[in-house]
Amino acid sequence: MTRFELEKQIAEKRSCLCVGLDSDFNKLPSHFSSDAKGVLDFNKEIISATRDLCVSYKLNTAFYEVMGAEGWTVLKETIKYIGPNHLIIADAKRGDIGNTAVQYAKTFFDQLQADAITLSPYMGGDTLKAFMSYGNKWSIVLALTSNSGSKDLQWLPTKGGFVYQHVVELVKNLGTAENTMFVVGGTQPDDLRAMRADCPNHFFLVPGVGKQGGTVSEVMKAGKIDSKSCGLLINSSRSIIFASSETDFAEAARSAAKDLTLQMAEFIS
Amino acid sequence: MTRFELEKQIAEKRSCLCVGLDSDFNKLPSHFSSDAKGVLDFNKEIISATRDLCVSYKLNTAFYEVMGAEGWTVLKETIKYIGPNHLIIADAKRGDIGNTAVQYAKTFFDQLQADAITLSPYMGGDTLKAFMSYGNKWSIVLALTSNSGSKDLQWLPTKGGFVYQHVVELVKNLGTAENTMFVVGGTQPDDLRAMRADCPNHFFLVPGVGKQGGTVSEVMKAGKIDSKSCGLLINSSRSIIFASSETDFAEAARSAAKDLTLQMAEFIS
Repeated sequence: MTRFELEKQIAEKRSCLCVGLDSDFNKLPSHFSSDAKGVLDFNKEIISATRDLCVSYKLNTAFYEVMGAEGWTVLKETIKYIGPNHLIIADAKRGDIGNTAVQYAKTFFDQLQADAITLSPYMGGDTLKAFMSYGNKWSIVLALTSNSGSKDLQWLPTKGGFVYQHVVELVKNLGTAENTMFVVGGTQPDDLRAMRADCPNHFFLVPGVGKQGGTVSEVMKAGKIDSKSCGLLINSSRSIIFASSETDFAEAARSAAKDLTLQMAEFIS
Repeated sequence: MTRFELEKQIAEKRSCLCVGLDSDFNKLPSHFSSDAKGVLDFNKEIISATRDLCVSYKLNTAFYEVMGAEGWTVLKETIKYIGPNHLIIADAKRGDIGNTAVQYAKTFFDQLQADAITLSPYMGGDTLKAFMSYGNKWSIVLALTSNSGSKDLQWLPTKGGFVYQHVVELVKNLGTAENTMFVVGGTQPDDLRAMRADCPNHFFLVPGVGKQGGTVSEVMKAGKIDSKSCGLLINSSRSIIFASSETDFAEAARSAAKDLTLQMAEFIS
């Protein structure tokens, strides 16, 4: 999916919602089986209930890998079920040397047909390049997260700025605002503001809204690009998909998603 | 596998060799099928030919994920085939927030029965903890790699040392030399020497020997702990497993492994 198509979806739906399919097989409503089949059935109902409200789905690969080979099949089937009209993010946080990175790019872009992958920058620029050589695919690089451990490396001061700012410069030099995004936590609006100052034109994938404490209005105010381009994908996972653990889970998911998109619409004209 | 058991294996075999099963299905000798079945058959022959020479096998998960669900099965079957007498490393370079990290730990330690996993530290200490809570399992954290991109973040100078030195301190505070190791590239002996000065007692997993240019003797001289403890796992992947692309591949792999272990034996009494 191109940036133009993504922006169009956001404008049409007046939503920059990304639904996180962190579909832990142990947490499904009790009428689903606690296994790979249960997860696929659950995902399909969540997707059907939220499709018109969101512009993106994010699949946290950990929740699929834990189911082994069957989990991998569910990942593939879920992506197929979502189809071509949403930006599909493989939240895999990969990062390895060149010949390994090529394998990961093949896996997520060619085999699974995801539109985007999240990447960890610790090993440096040469580990990110393989992903950026794909047309119409996105590399979403960890920049400034909002977990407590973000202080350990990301906020270390160096001569040329904090460590995360080096990541930003690195990625800006390797890619463009048409094929790279950054992961920026949503619980600290000041962080978002600082990132936006460094990156006036890149999309940010923002987790942390909902159960983790961030609010849509604070994120939109701190992170939106301008009236022409939203530049944000706001992710919510558990607050939507596990809004209810009863048979009304799909309705409850829709209602939680709707609530977020109404707040987003105020900022998207 | 405990540190005691690992040291015992190293002393008995006079080898600290880790064979990297980067078994790219496209590069198998032509009498194997270029698919998941081919990789499993190939792995079994490589393992049988090198079992008595090495103390560890490292499975680079990228080369298995690229084969989808079937690749995941091969990963599991290969680990089963190796058995309990080698340290089995899932080279997965994962790193994510707490509830996701728990899933990854379950996947690699409980489901796949790996002894160790490689981890990326960019998101900080709280993303590493879940792995360290397992008894007799190892967290092998990226510290100082030898790809060109290592300069981008790892070598950034900060007030308290280079960024990689903060990783070392962080991991030393979270774990012990009995459940944590570091990944340290093998092509720059000076890097190994610097790491050993910071970490007198931790094991290092050292890739980069063989095709990438590092030599056993330089790595041993720069990185070995002392006469009682080796403290090194020297990995070689392509130079061993793809030593020949003909029907004599297993023999050639054994011969390449043997050549490395003879060099190691000079340093292990």
